[in-house]
Amino acid sequence: MGGRVLLSGLVAYVVSHFPRFWRFVSRRPILRRWVNRFFIKWIASSEVPRPYPFSLWGPKADVATYSSWTGLTDRTFTGRHLPPADTTYAARLPDLDRLRPLFVRNEFRPCPKSTTLFALFAQWFTDSFLRTDPNDFRKNTSNHEIDLCQIYGLSNSDTQLLRSPKDGKLRSIRINGFEFPDRIMNDQFRVKEQYRGLSYVKNDDYTPGLLPPFADRPERRKDLFLSGLDRGNSTIVYSALNTIFMREHNRLCDLIKKANSTWDDDRVFETARNTNIVCLLQIIICDYINHLSTAQFRVYLDRAIAEQCRWYRTNRISAEFDLLYRWHPLAPTTFDGLPDEEFRYNNALLIDRGVEWVLEQASKQSAGRITLHNTAPFLIDAELAALQKARKWRIAPYNDYRKRFGLRPVSSFKELTADEALAIELSRLYRNVDDLEFTIGLLAETRPGNAVLGELMTLMVGVDAFTQALTNPLLSANVFCEDCFSSAGMTAILQTTDLQGLVRRNAHKNSVVSFTKYWNCT
Amino acid sequence: MGGRVLLSGLVAYVVSHFPRFWRFVSRRPILRRWVNRFFIKWIASSEVPRPYPFSLWGPKADVATYSSWTGLTDRTFTGRHLPPADTTYAARLPDLDRLRPLFVRNEFRPCPKSTTLFALFAQWFTDSFLRTDPNDFRKNTSNHEIDLCQIYGLSNSDTQLLRSPKDGKLRSIRINGFEFPDRIMNDQFRVKEQYRGLSYVKNDDYTPGLLPPFADRPERRKDLFLSGLDRGNSTIVYSALNTIFMREHNRLCDLIKKANSTWDDDRVFETARNTNIVCLLQIIICDYINHLSTAQFRVYLDRAIAEQCRWYRTNRISAEFDLLYRWHPLAPTTFDGLPDEEFRYNNALLIDRGVEWVLEQASKQSAGRITLHNTAPFLIDAELAALQKARKWRIAPYNDYRKRFGLRPVSSFKELTADEALAIELSRLYRNVDDLEFTIGLLAETRPGNAVLGELMTLMVGVDAFTQALTNPLLSANVFCEDCFSSAGMTAILQTTDLQGLVRRNAHKNSVVSFTKYWNCT
Repeated sequence: MGGRVLLSGLVAYVVSHFPRFWRFVSRRPILRRWVNRFFIKWIASSEVPRPYPFSLWGPKADVATYSSWTGLTDRTFTGRHLPPADTTYAARLPDLDRLRPLFVRNEFRPCPKSTTLFALFAQWFTDSFLRTDPNDFRKNTSNHEIDLCQIYGLSNSDTQLLRSPKDGKLRSIRINGFEFPDRIMNDQFRVKEQYRGLSYVKNDDYTPGLLPPFADRPERRKDLFLSGLDRGNSTIVYSALNTIFMREHNRLCDLIKKANSTWDDDRVFETARNTNIVCLLQIIICDYINHLSTAQFRVYLDRAIAEQCRWYRTNRISAEFDLLYRWHPLAPTTFDGLPDEEFRYNNALLIDRGVEWVLEQASKQSAGRITLHNTAPFLIDAELAALQKARKWRIAPYNDYRKRFGLRPVSSFKELTADEALAIELSRLYRNVDDLEFTIGLLAETRPGNAVLGELMTLMVGVDAFTQALTNPLLSANVFCEDCFSSAGMTAILQTTDLQGLVRRNAHKNSVVSFTKYWNCT
Repeated sequence: MGGRVLLSGLVAYVVSHFPRFWRFVSRRPILRRWVNRFFIKWIASSEVPRPYPFSLWGPKADVATYSSWTGLTDRTFTGRHLPPADTTYAARLPDLDRLRPLFVRNEFRPCPKSTTLFALFAQWFTDSFLRTDPNDFRKNTSNHEIDLCQIYGLSNSDTQLLRSPKDGKLRSIRINGFEFPDRIMNDQFRVKEQYRGLSYVKNDDYTPGLLPPFADRPERRKDLFLSGLDRGNSTIVYSALNTIFMREHNRLCDLIKKANSTWDDDRVFETARNTNIVCLLQIIICDYINHLSTAQFRVYLDRAIAEQCRWYRTNRISAEFDLLYRWHPLAPTTFDGLPDEEFRYNNALLIDRGVEWVLEQASKQSAGRITLHNTAPFLIDAELAALQKARKWRIAPYNDYRKRFGLRPVSSFKELTADEALAIELSRLYRNVDDLEFTIGLLAETRPGNAVLGELMTLMVGVDAFTQALTNPLLSANVFCEDCFSSAGMTAILQTTDLQGLVRRNAHKNSVVSFTKYWNCT
């Protein structure tokens, strides 16, 4: 462990410095591949591989402190990296009410690197696998894979309803010459008969209680789009991303059908879907992860890495991953000057201005910095609810996770954060730094340079991203071949390295779409 | 491939000869461990590891000839090792009616090695994971794991009904001083109210249509036992095995509770269940697999092997495994002189004579040889139904599987079998040996010495057994420790190396219980 800690520090230092050296490396294919493999394997092996002995399963409504067959194998229960903390830990924690001031945003602190697009893409992306079961918070309704269920749905029966029965396509309509998902509502603002079988539709109503009061009105209901998931219309960026990936699916169908005229509707659909999922994986590794990384070396998707590694194991979303990903401070309070209510559940705006406008505006605006004292007022209750969940699940302290992921535990609040006032505030609340709660520690960590996340958060996101994205069955050597994607699909996969490219081929060809603030970054 | 074929032959030769050398090896722990690892890894890596690009999934009721997201990830669909054969293959196959004579048993041909206990244990064992969904034959209702669902059930709600709510135990009753599973029927020969929630019970009736007419009578119904699976009473050996594993569970509960008096009902139950599953895995590797093997070296369960290997992958039962495991010729036509009807659904006999008597009698009788021309008359329709299934699923020919598993394809029917009359019979039916059907080839293969199975069948059973048993999550380094099983559980696991040991500690201490015929074997 000591050796790993030292080496980790060295690797982190080398990889985040010497830009000219890393540019040199990146231009030499063999060297680049070797470094890419080393780097991804290094991050992914920071923790012991799955299966973990514990999950959120427990008899009755509790979480168990022992291993059970159901807890090990029933993946409807969310996993966990560390076992429940001992019972005395909860007693040493400050009352939740005393933590409220920790989140209050007195003035907006911008993220030095991320755009609003990044914030809303992260929300859209994680909505597909951080899917808490509303009937039992210990459960996850996803299949733990990155699978574009945002447009394909969570079940086969939903998928059937989302498909047009011709040439493999997803249902869509043209509005002013542009392709959008079909509207889900009829002229009476009730769900169209043909969509009432969707799992998130109850009778002829959209998921009851989901629409906020400002959106539960005819003029907003009428433009709700057909979507794979219940929150598919929650922001105009979510709708824009769904629209782009739906258009890509249908574009692929045309190409595939043209080259394989004998293929039936089902085969064209499945081949386009396989391709579209891998295009998203390309964007996640090459665009999203590199945005989050402080390394000078940019990783890329080498599908052959994972199967060589001990972490090639069945995916299981963990409770810690779910908790750490609540990046509420990223959330902008306004969007291009529009208030919250105007960019949520407002597809009329998207239809009027177009997908490219929405994504470009989001790329021009800064996200908030993911840190304490920077949550928008309307999200503070959500922060406290997450802490309450973590306590119910007996999530271990921050320092325990540093150890688990091969980092040296911090010995004081001052070592945790360079912000002295914050260090003092935290020490008054927790006294002992070893008692600091997991998510509070993650939000308080010092960020080197313009890093989006602190040290442990970066590592935990990296471990879960690499070990869960690169284990996607479509990337397996047995599966990944032209048979699975068709020639057109293979070309699309190779062409996709960032979200901008995908938008340009499905919206405006000069769109500027970026997770990274391009106006004040190198 | 050529190198692997040659080396395979050499390994197979060396390991099945030189008994004195292998005895020498087995007495030296370090050498034994090394050889055990080499041997298991050698067998398990005969085929490329999962995930396989194909499964029995297909649009509508068909099987797909292309990879799809559902086919890759929805494990309710059975997997498959090889893609569907091309469409011309089916047209070249003989009519099913012409194959009927291939199965007819003119005189009983005994297996040179296996007892009836082995036959009925295999049926009991595979009933837990070769679970064809009666509503869609392409699907499997198990979780693809070895998990003793025979006594614990397939779902949490069934498990709750099978449990006594005290000290972690399974429901049981004492009859004449001996412990048996509870009777499932009430005095009116209907399912007791408390068991009507079991997934295989419909209203107050046992699975409709399951009981054969001779068993659907009050005197047979009254002694039906509570069981995890619908076929839990199908033979007295099945009932005896359920009884033994239920007794072991309850015995473990007593030991665990005694050593951990503060543990609640749930924790004792889960710990005993974890232990009992691993005890079964011990029996499978050390007793069952070694019985099937022709090697002089006896493998043992080294839980640390799998996680080092590329085949440490999510389990998925394959269609081929399901088809090859139809060892109908093993089935005896009588049991200790009793006709079929007397040893099926007849727990009164088990209660009267005792578990040890049933298992001992089964150990004294020879099983049939797994070969063509040796199926009991009442099972021939089942053989043909399996062939029909294989054709519907477009299972590839026998020789294709030889290639897939690293064996040289046979170049003629004479090379396939030393039985000249059979070779001629097969050549008349199939003409080209490359068209020979998968299961017919497996049944026709020459057996070296007293081998139970032929070359390809042994290898395929070995690959699936090792790669699916040793990947059990309870064997993972993260999970396998005293915390998971308790000290008493760890002791039980280490003590379990064969079925006889388990029977002796839960029935008569001198029981002689054996898969291998001890009266004419070395």
